[in-house]
Amino acid sequence: MTRFALTIEYDGRPFMGWQRQDHGPSIQAAVERAAAAMLGAETAVHAAGRTDAGVHATAMRAHLDVMKPLTPFRLMEGLNALLRPDPVAILACEAVADDWHARFSCTGRVYIYRIVNRRAPLALERGLAWRVPTALDAAAMHDAAQRLVGRHDFTTFRSVHCQASSPLRTLDRLDVTRDGDQISIRAEARSFLHHQVRSMVGCLALVGRGQWTVDDISAALAARDRAALGLNAPPDGLYFVGARY
Amino acid sequence: MTRFALTIEYDGRPFMGWQRQDHGPSIQAAVERAAAAMLGAETAVHAAGRTDAGVHATAMRAHLDVMKPLTPFRLMEGLNALLRPDPVAILACEAVADDWHARFSCTGRVYIYRIVNRRAPLALERGLAWRVPTALDAAAMHDAAQRLVGRHDFTTFRSVHCQASSPLRTLDRLDVTRDGDQISIRAEARSFLHHQVRSMVGCLALVGRGQWTVDDISAALAARDRAALGLNAPPDGLYFVGARY
Repeated sequence: MTRFALTIEYDGRPFMGWQRQDHGPSIQAAVERAAAAMLGAETAVHAAGRTDAGVHATAMRAHLDVMKPLTPFRLMEGLNALLRPDPVAILACEAVADDWHARFSCTGRVYIYRIVNRRAPLALERGLAWRVPTALDAAAMHDAAQRLVGRHDFTTFRSVHCQASSPLRTLDRLDVTRDGDQISIRAEARSFLHHQVRSMVGCLALVGRGQWTVDDISAALAARDRAALGLNAPPDGLYFVGARY
Repeated sequence: MTRFALTIEYDGRPFMGWQRQDHGPSIQAAVERAAAAMLGAETAVHAAGRTDAGVHATAMRAHLDVMKPLTPFRLMEGLNALLRPDPVAILACEAVADDWHARFSCTGRVYIYRIVNRRAPLALERGLAWRVPTALDAAAMHDAAQRLVGRHDFTTFRSVHCQASSPLRTLDRLDVTRDGDQISIRAEARSFLHHQVRSMVGCLALVGRGQWTVDDISAALAARDRAALGLNAPPDGLYFVGARY
């Protein structure tokens, strides 16, 4: 048996999310179907993060176990051929230790959330970014974001469906930068709660619009109450961009 | 009557090209249909460039004449509302002089061609870039590109369907740059021949792969013969990004 680590790019728009579902297509099911067709055996694929419906990845990490003798290159090429026409691509593949686990060995996850701050609808990036028509103050958003960095109870910023046993998380970094009408929010942590990045981004957008002050962010965090959330940003702008091991 | 200049973003994938066609959808027809619905009169829309099927724009320039009293903002908002769900967005709108013409007043056009140089298929940017799986030497491509800059007979690099009366054009700039696996080719000229950018990019890719030398580019240009063309790049990676007046 050889365990292989995969780096996967996907467009989340046609999927119900990473995780296999009974009621619709998922990225996990697409990769597992390709692996089963190639390897002639049911094959489980485990990912570093379980992204939601409509959320994208430029570099999701995952692993699978292969009984056949196979080079990483052949596995990558075979999976990519079988994944067509799904918008899922294996960017890299390497053999790893048998106890390496894409999810449990992961010590850091990085997401980027993309906002296009302009009046006009998106023609080229529909579903690939969140268009916010009112002017956003990215510097104020960055200041507010620093109130969320550190170890906190993120109950306000987690979905009511979140299954994590604890709402405590350590947010290592939350940086907001602007380049023209593009605003990019980079979030880094060992792990995130369900909807945490989208919930933080939604509230930062309220600060950017001037509806919330920086102190309102602190108050929302201190409330430890989902009802204190100002806004949950749509999945469109969210990308899983990297995992650390 | 007021003449308005528009700046238009579009995703070329679902269209037969900018120009109105009998046999399929076009960006021109989409904008003219929205204008007619809003203004209650047939309205011609003229663009700076007539892009081909599958070619995109981040900032096409166009103009139309409006008899009703209307602010640029209302015109832009109305057109954007009526253009849905087509992937066409009016980014900006301004009143211009009655003799300003998006095509005939234009003194410079800028295209960017995007190559993603990697083995894996494109998941997030399918149809939005040209994926070239073999390694490309971008520095060699840039050197070769300089052989095309200047005033030349570009017969080799024009479609046999090109309707321009002369194959002479002055190419002001053709720059090739790399950022990771992204290669960007920026082309600037007063005007271009039909397929000129795609034909130049195709031959530069041959240089990047080592199949052609820099001198082969000069020989292809000197041949003034479409049969001397090495490769025509697909429309996927081509963007009209700006016009000068």
